[in-house]
Amino acid sequence: MAGAQSIGVGMLGYAFMGKAHSRAFLAQRTLGGPLQPELVSISGRNREKLEEARAQYGWTEAVTDWREQVEDDRIGLFDNGGPNALHAEPSIAAARAGKHVLCEKPLGRTAAESLEMWREAETAGVVHMCGFNYRFVPAVRLARELLEAGELGDVVHFRARYLQSWGWDAPPSWRFDSEAAGSGALGDLGAHIVDLARYLVGEPAALSAVVRTFVEEREVDDSFVAVVEFDNGVTGTLEASRLARGRINQNTFEVNGSKGSLSFDVERLNELQLADEGGMFTRVLVTEPDHPFMSLWWPPGHIVGWGDTFTHEIHHLLAAIVGDTSVAPHGATFEDGYRCAEVCDAILRSAENGSREEVSYRG
Amino acid sequence: MAGAQSIGVGMLGYAFMGKAHSRAFLAQRTLGGPLQPELVSISGRNREKLEEARAQYGWTEAVTDWREQVEDDRIGLFDNGGPNALHAEPSIAAARAGKHVLCEKPLGRTAAESLEMWREAETAGVVHMCGFNYRFVPAVRLARELLEAGELGDVVHFRARYLQSWGWDAPPSWRFDSEAAGSGALGDLGAHIVDLARYLVGEPAALSAVVRTFVEEREVDDSFVAVVEFDNGVTGTLEASRLARGRINQNTFEVNGSKGSLSFDVERLNELQLADEGGMFTRVLVTEPDHPFMSLWWPPGHIVGWGDTFTHEIHHLLAAIVGDTSVAPHGATFEDGYRCAEVCDAILRSAENGSREEVSYRG
Amino acid sequence: MAGAQSIGVGMLGYAFMGKAHSRAFLAQRTLGGPLQPELVSISGRNREKLEEARAQYGWTEAVTDWREQVEDDRIGLFDNGGPNALHAEPSIAAARAGKHVLCEKPLGRTAAESLEMWREAETAGVVHMCGFNYRFVPAVRLARELLEAGELGDVVHFRARYLQSWGWDAPPSWRFDSEAAGSGALGDLGAHIVDLARYLVGEPAALSAVVRTFVEEREVDDSFVAVVEFDNGVTGTLEASRLARGRINQNTFEVNGSKGSLSFDVERLNELQLADEGGMFTRVLVTEPDHPFMSLWWPPGHIVGWGDTFTHEIHHLLAAIVGDTSVAPHGATFEDGYRCAEVCDAILRSAENGSREEVSYRG
Amino acid sequence: MAGAQSIGVGMLGYAFMGKAHSRAFLAQRTLGGPLQPELVSISGRNREKLEEARAQYGWTEAVTDWREQVEDDRIGLFDNGGPNALHAEPSIAAARAGKHVLCEKPLGRTAAESLEMWREAETAGVVHMCGFNYRFVPAVRLARELLEAGELGDVVHFRARYLQSWGWDAPPSWRFDSEAAGSGALGDLGAHIVDLARYLVGEPAALSAVVRTFVEEREVDDSFVAVVEFDNGVTGTLEASRLARGRINQNTFEVNGSKGSLSFDVERLNELQLADEGGMFTRVLVTEPDHPFMSLWWPPGHIVGWGDTFTHEIHHLLAAIVGDTSVAPHGATFEDGYRCAEVCDAILRSAENGSREEVSYRG
Repeated sequence: MAGAQSIGVGMLGYAFMGKAHSRAFLAQRTLGGPLQPELVSISGRNREKLEEARAQYGWTEAVTDWREQVEDDRIGLFDNGGPNALHAEPSIAAARAGKHVLCEKPLGRTAAESLEMWREAETAGVVHMCGFNYRFVPAVRLARELLEAGELGDVVHFRARYLQSWGWDAPPSWRFDSEAAGSGALGDLGAHIVDLARYLVGEPAALSAVVRTFVEEREVDDSFVAVVEFDNGVTGTLEASRLARGRINQNTFEVNGSKGSLSFDVERLNELQLADEGGMFTRVLVTEPDHPFMSLWWPPGHIVGWGDTFTHEIHHLLAAIVGDTSVAPHGATFEDGYRCAEVCDAILRSAENGSREEVSYRG
Repeated sequence: MAGAQSIGVGMLGYAFMGKAHSRAFLAQRTLGGPLQPELVSISGRNREKLEEARAQYGWTEAVTDWREQVEDDRIGLFDNGGPNALHAEPSIAAARAGKHVLCEKPLGRTAAESLEMWREAETAGVVHMCGFNYRFVPAVRLARELLEAGELGDVVHFRARYLQSWGWDAPPSWRFDSEAAGSGALGDLGAHIVDLARYLVGEPAALSAVVRTFVEEREVDDSFVAVVEFDNGVTGTLEASRLARGRINQNTFEVNGSKGSLSFDVERLNELQLADEGGMFTRVLVTEPDHPFMSLWWPPGHIVGWGDTFTHEIHHLLAAIVGDTSVAPHGATFEDGYRCAEVCDAILRSAENGSREEVSYRG
Repeated sequence: MAGAQSIGVGMLGYAFMGKAHSRAFLAQRTLGGPLQPELVSISGRNREKLEEARAQYGWTEAVTDWREQVEDDRIGLFDNGGPNALHAEPSIAAARAGKHVLCEKPLGRTAAESLEMWREAETAGVVHMCGFNYRFVPAVRLARELLEAGELGDVVHFRARYLQSWGWDAPPSWRFDSEAAGSGALGDLGAHIVDLARYLVGEPAALSAVVRTFVEEREVDDSFVAVVEFDNGVTGTLEASRLARGRINQNTFEVNGSKGSLSFDVERLNELQLADEGGMFTRVLVTEPDHPFMSLWWPPGHIVGWGDTFTHEIHHLLAAIVGDTSVAPHGATFEDGYRCAEVCDAILRSAENGSREEVSYRG
Repeated sequence: MAGAQSIGVGMLGYAFMGKAHSRAFLAQRTLGGPLQPELVSISGRNREKLEEARAQYGWTEAVTDWREQVEDDRIGLFDNGGPNALHAEPSIAAARAGKHVLCEKPLGRTAAESLEMWREAETAGVVHMCGFNYRFVPAVRLARELLEAGELGDVVHFRARYLQSWGWDAPPSWRFDSEAAGSGALGDLGAHIVDLARYLVGEPAALSAVVRTFVEEREVDDSFVAVVEFDNGVTGTLEASRLARGRINQNTFEVNGSKGSLSFDVERLNELQLADEGGMFTRVLVTEPDHPFMSLWWPPGHIVGWGDTFTHEIHHLLAAIVGDTSVAPHGATFEDGYRCAEVCDAILRSAENGSREEVSYRG
């Protein structure tokens, strides 16, 4: 690591995403990247839990106001893993202060909020990334590479669904609060598959959707279904739900083209099902040395885990910061976060109006 | 079989469905049912192929005009397995002549044609059945029984898709002719999953759909996608395509309820995936002695085939004719065929108008 | 069927195999074969059940002594589906009377008994077949064809197991009686996989085995395990058990060669898993028109059932009787039944002696 | 981490195991354990690769002679991940020097060598562990807990196989050198499943095996098969091969008992298939908060990877060093390493002698 530059990191949030990001920062030193993170400070409101997280994950300091991080000259990268309502303001402030910004998904709670975040980050000239970590699953990257290389021919169909089951019996959480979360299954799960649709297939151009809250007294949506027309003629379905018993974390998609098909499920994230014109699906274990990211890991058949997607994501971000690559197209920028939000907003409009809605993006 | 009554059967059609139905009629004698079919005549236009089918499947006579069958007093059951354009006229004529009628799906090419068929059959007072054979898969019947018994609690989601891949390279066929077929993937594959949706979950009340023809010079649709709202609040997606490489005959559905989920695929038609509140899916091999239809067959784990669904279907129809049961609810009547057609028509209207369409049924 | 010859059939047994064989005989008329069976008589000891079976499956007569069948000039084919203890004497008598003979597996209860059956059938000059129906699964035939064509290169490993679970709670049955059954899991399940090993890979030359009865007061074995060296250098494992909870009818094998591998399971009998040098397994749905036996059936993806294997088997036997083909190599002759018995006997010897046993075959 | 003790670590080896162990040591700081590792030095013969590994994984020093580590007072834990021929001497020297020792599997190249290692470690009174990391897969630990709790009733069968395919085309390696490796597939893959057999089911008491080298000019075995009788009456099969095309890293086992069965495969290491008396297999995704090790990780359905098993293993070892737990029974001690070696030696003896061999263990 001699000669590797370092960058100070300030992170907002200490819960699920705080844990995942912290571990991914720590793992960087085993990857031999050109830029190494220094864990300057972690911020959050609950001092006790914050201190616990600081100690466990090796952050030097803990601060209860993210504004201290924005003003901290040691910090070059601001990582926002807080609740959705805390995405916009701190991220914008950090960008204005010249810090590179990684913000968890969904970027903002609405397209408007997301657009502002993107514009501010662009104006500030910082590197910005939205935390769509599933782009960094080896099998998903392989899917993208195969599609880019034309291996599937002309794509005609895309279908994705993200199903979980915990919504039936869940305890209270900010995730059910409309002010804090913005939306429910749509922003939490749907945003992921909208991003994957855009990453793999193209821009949604029009859609019709139904959004539903089934559980009484719940403020946010439990589920949605949508049919989508993409700008390149592909047709598809999107669906997310927190009420699908038996589905623990089924984030699955399938692409059909004139020359082949591919299929994926996060619960078996090391596998990609591939079919060609000949016809049947082959289960490809995406652990060969020449598969994406696998040079970092183990011999064939020794699988990676969900947490490792963050390791890949942050590795990519750090490489973008030193200029070895750019965030796009394999990472999601704030523009991607914004475009995803336009699709989510169109889903809500369609559901509310009972109409087919076009999706329009602002440059 | 001593004492079993018999009924004369006239069948229109000698191709795919002719083969499947003939074998199912022949298999009845091994099931010990109270009514045994006598294979009086088979009709079709191509005399050579007709005679070949007659000889192979044991029909006594072959006639090139179905009107001869309608006038044949030896025939008590008219089985219509001809092309879609030949469903209405012969079936109506047979009913008017007092014959019980089994007609392949889709019932008519439109809701209007289907409605007329239903009304005529009702007026004639004959037993009528529409050939939705997937209701007679043991695992599908088990799914229905579990749903009826409330084992899944309140149902919230339904999703079904019927994907095949032969559409890319298919030779010319009446199936691509809009006059003969009425529609493409919609009537051929979509009708099956619309019927299963109705059989398992409830009546579609409103939907938004996209219907597409991707292959040049093809008259009928290659695929459709739809989001559906059912009258009981369930939301769902429906999809069919003949352009899904790698999917040979994937007719799959999933139901999610407050207390459990179930999932099925025709390619593994002896299996039903079941989850309860506890959480994970169990692969149930639907071959136990107490599973639907399995008392007719083999010891556990010795699977049945796709052709056997017709054996069950015709066994059920014959029992209905002698009054041991009624066609509904486990078999599809012409009313079911008509209601399915209303949903298919709404799918076409929605696709044409770019609008959410309500489905209305006439009594 | 005009011009098709016919052959009178006499069948011994009316239980599980009686049902399967009867249906397979009836199904012949839909296959257009050159020789059509006439169901002359069925024999068995329990007159009531016998008459029930006769009526249900359409046998003309029922007789309580198989000797009447042996003496019946109308009968050209004797089908022995009785208990194992009744395999040798009636089959030999039928062969001596000049009747072709189909006998269920295991051929005899011992190698000695089986050898006598083979010799007598050969001496009589009749067509003889042992009912190893799994050779007639389309995927198994395909496996054999791929192996014969050298698609897997030099074969190194074979492993097969046949696991069921009903042995824990089973009611009394002749299957647990050592005199009637000869052996337990070994003859019932093990014989099938020994035959498949021979059909696919080669002759077992030496083996070491453990045979066990776990359930108290049971006379026959519940399970066995064996390591096998084949005459061509292949090494393998064989295992059968009636005590494997969760395994309903898992008859599974895998072959590994220098250029590829294949894997199969009867519970999904329409599927063959295939891997080549490139590396991963493709799930081949063995329902394409050019797959073995599938020209008799449905379009791709419409699966066949377990019962259909008997239809193929008897179709093959009838073709052999008219001289269109020979029973071997795709059907099992009495020689195959005998050779299988030598392997089973060696398994018992090895278990008894705690030694590695060579398998020797007599010409 | 305030108040956490620390322990200096010296590691021998920088290849595959060096990478896996280094990452696992680094990951400890995110687990909040009571003892934190300090990475004092890494040793190996190739100075260039050694220095590269030192820098990448954050070891303070690199030394080319492991004896320096044995003499280094800063080191309290010696981690031996070198080639098999370098397991005994350095591990014994470290133990004699009072250091706790973690040694990769197989412990020694023979039972005799392994026994000496165990005795020396015991005499020295240090904590000793053999690196059977599959014991630390959450699903494997869950399997053990279910077996201990009697959930499967009386166990009757065990079958395990560890199949890879790289042996056909592999470049030269110490793994094919009989002096350096001791054995081939047996020690590399077979040792893992022998250990799992012992961890889950009991002590092998007698066995019959065939060991084969198929690839020309190869010194060590490519594969073996064995039937095993356990001291508690369980019967089983064991198999390992590097020549199974299509099997990338299939380490799979199944246990059948009077009340249920369980089945596992490392390629899907987050899943455990479970069946009870009722009958069918449920796919349990072992990612629930109350599943073994999962309190350290993510929400349900977010899977862990193969590398994380080392994180669990070293976490367990560190807890044993501070006395919070003992290495046994969930970790493998040097005694376990020795007992595994006795089974492997018996496999070789049986293959050589063509005999059933009893396995005897020295206290």
